[in-house]
Parts: sequence; C-alpha cells; structure tokens
Amino acid sequence: MPYYIAVYDVNVRRVAKMLKLFRRYLTWVQRSVFEGELTEAQFQRLQHEAGRLMNPDEDVVIFYELRDVRYSRRLVLGTEQGHRDRFL
Amino acid sequence: MPYYIAVYDVNVRRVAKMLKLFRRYLTWVQRSVFEGELTEAQFQRLQHEAGRLMNPDEDVVIFYELRDVRYSRRLVLGTEQGHRDRFL
Repeated sequence: MPYYIAVYDVNVRRVAKMLKLFRRYLTWVQRSVFEGELTEAQFQRLQHEAGRLMNPDEDVVIFYELRDVRYSRRLVLGTEQGHRDRFL
Repeated sequence: MPYYIAVYDVNVRRVAKMLKLFRRYLTWVQRSVFEGELTEAQFQRLQHEAGRLMNPDEDVVIFYELRDVRYSRRLVLGTEQGHRDRFL
C-alpha cells in the first residue's frame, strides 16, 4: 500500500469538516498535515469526499503519494504534537 | 539531489522568520508547506538555521526526504497558490 502525506489549505468555514474527513482516513500530524497508508480504493474515496466538501476555486489539497517508502525518509526537528505510528 | 517536502508548525512570534528562512532554500507551496531539491550541504545548513530559530519545546519542523522521485507522485485538488516548477 502506498504511503500518503496530505496537506490542505481551505477556507476557515470548511476547516472543521475537512479535519473530520481526513482524520477518518489518515493520522493527523500537525495543523493541516496528515499521513498514512491508503489502498487505491480508500484514496479514491478520500479524493472524492474532499472534492465534494471543498470549493476548488478557493481551497487546495495536495497529496504526496510515496509508492516505496524505502526511497524516503522523515526527519523531525522539535516536538511533534500529532500521534503517529512509526512507519516512514 | 533529493527532493524535500517541509512542513512546520511554529509559535506565531517565529512564523515570519521561519517563512523567510525556508523561502531562501525551498519553494513556498501553501501555508507552512515548502518543496524543492536540496544538496546534502544545503539540507544540513537549513536544519541548522531552523534549529537556531525555533524553540524545540514549542515548535516542530518535519522534513520528508524523497531520494528518488520516481517512487512518488503529487496530486492536487483545487487551486494552488504557491508558484513551483513542475518537478514532482
């Protein structure tokens, strides 16, 4: 399963709903940053639901799909807030 | 050269300085999200400078290092604000 990093920047009126949606699929890392593994079907559904929630003219969601985590590394400076299981 | 995605969540008093620092090394994508290629030396310097600016007890910076972009993909929903050259 690919590993995803998702970041969004949405109108303040939609933040709560987007947070709730993304938390159903991925692990909250900080602010509007989420991570986690998704199957292709889950990823399609998340994109679909996010697309229905957001205003494409004002909001943006960016997904970084890492198909092989052996080619990536995660480095943290400071103190993480979000809980996540060590995968990447 | 590896490709980096950087996200940070810092105390509001330090946001302006962190933005200025990260813009010297990477391309601003949205909010506190940056992307771009860095040499190992540049990456070390950016980590060092960020470490000096931030309060590690309050702030966090996360770097995702993609050593081979062929194993990653970037998907955008909506309208991007930041300017970036199409690399990933």
